[in-house]
Amino acid sequence: MNFMPPFTKMIDLATGVIQDAVLVQERYLCDMRGMYADSAAEAALAAANPLIYRVYEATANPDEHGQLRYSTTVIEPGKVGDEYFMTKGHYHARGECAELYFGLAGEGVLILQTPAGEVSIQRMTPGAASYVPPYWGHRTINIGRVPFAFFACYPAEAGYDYGAIAESGFASLIIERDGAMQAIPNPRFTRK
Amino acid sequence: MNFMPPFTKMIDLATGVIQDAVLVQERYLCDMRGMYADSAAEAALAAANPLIYRVYEATANPDEHGQLRYSTTVIEPGKVGDEYFMTKGHYHARGECAELYFGLAGEGVLILQTPAGEVSIQRMTPGAASYVPPYWGHRTINIGRVPFAFFACYPAEAGYDYGAIAESGFASLIIERDGAMQAIPNPRFTRK
Repeated sequence: MNFMPPFTKMIDLATGVIQDAVLVQERYLCDMRGMYADSAAEAALAAANPLIYRVYEATANPDEHGQLRYSTTVIEPGKVGDEYFMTKGHYHARGECAELYFGLAGEGVLILQTPAGEVSIQRMTPGAASYVPPYWGHRTINIGRVPFAFFACYPAEAGYDYGAIAESGFASLIIERDGAMQAIPNPRFTRK
Repeated sequence: MNFMPPFTKMIDLATGVIQDAVLVQERYLCDMRGMYADSAAEAALAAANPLIYRVYEATANPDEHGQLRYSTTVIEPGKVGDEYFMTKGHYHARGECAELYFGLAGEGVLILQTPAGEVSIQRMTPGAASYVPPYWGHRTINIGRVPFAFFACYPAEAGYDYGAIAESGFASLIIERDGAMQAIPNPRFTRK
């Protein structure tokens, strides 16, 4: 039997950066076309094309049953119109797979949604351990003025389904109103 | 379909304590009889019976395929003879299940072992993300002068097998010699 070697990677607790990450994904505004509700505000920012978030994948552990993977995500502070910078969001291709988030720096929101449109909103600050139960879609949002960084651990076999959320988004938009975070209904959301 | 509700628990990053933990396990010296190599030193400490470590279980998420659980462990500083305070250590009942450790406070060592006695030693400091691959037994050890706290995430179905390690221990002992951590062979270890 071959035993996979144990390993340790350092995560910078202030910035969320994983040392020797095997993959760093960068998502700019142009990579999220149509995902923000205010299309005029999106168009106005198109030339500047700001960085929205980075994902640091620690490893490519095999996607076998029982294996885990972990990553960190760093979302920049900012807004498109009133809507805070956020990740694309996804369901897991294997819906029965959960995920654990752990806040490292900054202040954010985890929005979760069932396919039928039930929404849950979890506040995340450093030390917050938020559980994404099976079958909930999930997106994270930076509601603060500094980068929001969090750690994620998930079954290596979980996979991604971005399609459903790219199509109709989440039932709630997370916006700033009068200087505070607010969740409002997404007029474009369509229940499956 | 019933969707399990998402939730967030706060972890104190300085102490490792999980707010509203569902279970707090406390292990005193008397709970680890025979696990330290120096039986005379163990006997000398028996009356004082010091607290060795606490485990804070965040939740009892169902042990279904795809679910995760998480906990924190806080190991007190101290030694039994030359051997640092440590956890019992275990294999997973489902050996194919991995685990992820994440250092929060203090300084420790993660010792891992295959059933054949191959050993790996990982240093853990705050921000260290250490991977316990499938089929490795694992134990953590406080090699510092303050409590060593770390976070753990694992498949909810992983389970525990304490028997193999209680019987013959790990192939290496982690001891203090001349003020520094050292790994030495465990004379009582028997290969399976």
